[in-house]
Amino acid sequence: MRATAYQRKLDVKNGRIDLSHGAGGRAMAQLISGLFHEAFGNEWLARGNDQAAFDVGAGRMVMTTDGYVVSPLFFPGGNIGSLAVHGTINDVAMGGARPLYLSASFIIEEGFRFSDLKTIADSMGEAARAAGVYIITGDTKVVERGKADGLFISTTGVGVLADGLDLSAEKARVGDRVLVSGSLGDHGTAIMSRRQNLAFETEIVSDSAALHDLVALMVAAGGSSIRVMRDPTRGGLAAMLNEIAHQSGLGFRLQEEAIPVKPAVAAACELLGLDPLHVANEGKLVAIVAPDMADAVLAAMKAHPLGCDAADIGEAVADNHQFVQMSTGFGGGRIVDWLAGEQLPRIC
Amino acid sequence: MRATAYQRKLDVKNGRIDLSHGAGGRAMAQLISGLFHEAFGNEWLARGNDQAAFDVGAGRMVMTTDGYVVSPLFFPGGNIGSLAVHGTINDVAMGGARPLYLSASFIIEEGFRFSDLKTIADSMGEAARAAGVYIITGDTKVVERGKADGLFISTTGVGVLADGLDLSAEKARVGDRVLVSGSLGDHGTAIMSRRQNLAFETEIVSDSAALHDLVALMVAAGGSSIRVMRDPTRGGLAAMLNEIAHQSGLGFRLQEEAIPVKPAVAAACELLGLDPLHVANEGKLVAIVAPDMADAVLAAMKAHPLGCDAADIGEAVADNHQFVQMSTGFGGGRIVDWLAGEQLPRIC
Repeated sequence: MRATAYQRKLDVKNGRIDLSHGAGGRAMAQLISGLFHEAFGNEWLARGNDQAAFDVGAGRMVMTTDGYVVSPLFFPGGNIGSLAVHGTINDVAMGGARPLYLSASFIIEEGFRFSDLKTIADSMGEAARAAGVYIITGDTKVVERGKADGLFISTTGVGVLADGLDLSAEKARVGDRVLVSGSLGDHGTAIMSRRQNLAFETEIVSDSAALHDLVALMVAAGGSSIRVMRDPTRGGLAAMLNEIAHQSGLGFRLQEEAIPVKPAVAAACELLGLDPLHVANEGKLVAIVAPDMADAVLAAMKAHPLGCDAADIGEAVADNHQFVQMSTGFGGGRIVDWLAGEQLPRIC
Repeated sequence: MRATAYQRKLDVKNGRIDLSHGAGGRAMAQLISGLFHEAFGNEWLARGNDQAAFDVGAGRMVMTTDGYVVSPLFFPGGNIGSLAVHGTINDVAMGGARPLYLSASFIIEEGFRFSDLKTIADSMGEAARAAGVYIITGDTKVVERGKADGLFISTTGVGVLADGLDLSAEKARVGDRVLVSGSLGDHGTAIMSRRQNLAFETEIVSDSAALHDLVALMVAAGGSSIRVMRDPTRGGLAAMLNEIAHQSGLGFRLQEEAIPVKPAVAAACELLGLDPLHVANEGKLVAIVAPDMADAVLAAMKAHPLGCDAADIGEAVADNHQFVQMSTGFGGGRIVDWLAGEQLPRIC
């Protein structure tokens, strides 16, 4: 993402993106310096090269990427920009790593308002600063009207792993506990409510948040007794646990009454015909933890504001079918399958 | 990018992407394992986590990202997949670094053919293997029909810098030579010819290629006498040199007859009303090199197949206006400005 000082200022209030803003010429340079550099402001972008350099110590790094196509772009609790920063920070953190640097690739539809782009870029800058990470390199492309849907963002993150930590799904063992950091279904329900123009007595707000500080506390408390962590985004808790079941060759047994779901979210899900276990979260994590250390990790989670509603919701069991099962309140049970098809398109 | 072994096979020949392939459930897992893992095949993806870990030595790394929205997706000399791999490798290499790992984020329009996606993913895998880099993590999102244009890809790359190397535009000095690695305008002209369905006597083929080996030879020959390198993509040589002029506070003076342009490309540009200096390249680089080492660096470039047509095309000059000027054959001259607007949308 290159730019230096250019004469004309962007008309952020009234202007709109046109094809010239993706053309590699003067208009693109103005957009980058006038909008992205101001929002992300850091020494790497200021140098205006096509790549950014940083020092690393010897050790192990992680890298992750995500595309964001959420619709609508603005929703209660955030927008596509804050979501893109939080989501990628979280995927770095789920590897047990401390996030350091992000890149951002913008694909913008011709006609998109500068003012909306500025709001989104500012949210990205704020989310990054709050998390202590830097957006050090980026790219913008513009496509013709009707060839995209406003704005898509792809963010990539890198971070450093603590010595010896190697979290991976196949490390789960029979008897491991399943810990969740808080209530499920907030993000997806907030998006769907906004999309359907539903108003509830209590506004449902996305849980979009950066989880790396919470993860650092957990790693300090549990170290390698944490087998694997994941954030249950698309497909929700159900898809995530089914994946881990497949990867580890185990099953899981959950206790329904232990799974935290906010009453407003449960009510909205009922109205919308959704199951909170399938709904995306953007500020929650699930950890599979060795049984002897589960209480210590859970206590560490509860000590952080983003983990105050953390709960132990079940355990890993031997199961050749690799089923995720749930015991319900009245002694019954059901299989928590993942969905074959699509419940909630464009939720993130 | 997670996946393990799943029962149903993808119908790659006849199938198409639907919204379920972006939903985080079973269909997405099938797509990832059946198509992307096969194409990219490496130990990181096989573990099926949302992030990939790798070892690094102490030192300096670079990171870069690019979105690809090229239209058409397939063109003479490549497709969006090979282009996305080459382009990001090149942006790492232009920092003087050795590229190591890539991530890839796919935004796919509902209805896109599996067979096209497989061709593109296979090209990415081949391009990465040929360059000795690995696509270690990825993401797929699907948007509704009419909300994208087939396929967009964002790739991010990381690499390691040789000790002490710090290339940056502001390091250019008066008297520095401008070296170009080969003929200009091939990529953009190939895309435009395909878009306009033009047939020429000699088919014009994109120069899309990974330049990191060429760069390694140049760095070995020139070290820090190379002030800055860039690949003249969008906006071509003209935009690139104008940017460096702004960043360094210098001007440039070029010799028109020294600038390599293939006769077929020159003819096509004339027909299409394009100036080869503004047309995108995807397998060429420009280096600004201290005058005493320019011949050695040029010789190193010529020793590599991708640099066999390398040329010294001009020099950096003192100029408060930071103009890029070109002397033409008959003793005349002109200013090589960058374009204010858009000449070639969606060229990369």
